[in-house]
Amino acid sequence: MAYDPNNIFARILRKEIPARTVYEDDFVLAFHDIAPKAPIHVLVIPKSPYISIADFSATASSEELTGFWRAVSKIAEEQGLTHEGFRLISNSGPNSGQEVPHFHVHLFGGTFLGV
Amino acid sequence: MAYDPNNIFARILRKEIPARTVYEDDFVLAFHDIAPKAPIHVLVIPKSPYISIADFSATASSEELTGFWRAVSKIAEEQGLTHEGFRLISNSGPNSGQEVPHFHVHLFGGTFLGV
Repeated sequence: MAYDPNNIFARILRKEIPARTVYEDDFVLAFHDIAPKAPIHVLVIPKSPYISIADFSATASSEELTGFWRAVSKIAEEQGLTHEGFRLISNSGPNSGQEVPHFHVHLFGGTFLGV
Repeated sequence: MAYDPNNIFARILRKEIPARTVYEDDFVLAFHDIAPKAPIHVLVIPKSPYISIADFSATASSEELTGFWRAVSKIAEEQGLTHEGFRLISNSGPNSGQEVPHFHVHLFGGTFLGV
């Protein structure tokens, strides 16, 4: 499957659609989900065009992988979640219900999230 | 919080407790969850003592981070999940319900996982 350059996250990266940004660096953009499922629900995405965590983890450079996960950790810290806790979810492909074909990690926190 | 060297995943890494291993390399061990919540439910853990994805992402070396995520991608591929899809979840800290204080990623697949 080829990357669709008109998916909503690609359009957010191009500033064609607004988003409430919480973090940005050379590799990563993070913003509030427009339909939050927890008091804190942030989406963390790479700036490069990866469809899912499957191709990101398999093909991104070590620098990109490290930059991405360092950023996730920083965002959790900045959101005040490191000690109280948080959940990360990444859906990849049809069986997961992945909605946007640009790799993203959901960061949930701010309440007890259930088991 | 200090790392507890007697948590169950540390004991699995020391071979004190058996596990059904699906993948192993220098950085990573992956094995079937003993109480699977999907047809495929694999736990992927680093061999080094990190409590959660928070400290792993913040403090692991670039080599460890890259090795870990490359392995997750390989395991998804080996389990036949790359095309049909899979979900990754990592719980960190009290609000997430994290049960074992050794960083682990849940890999779910083999059926439609819901949204």
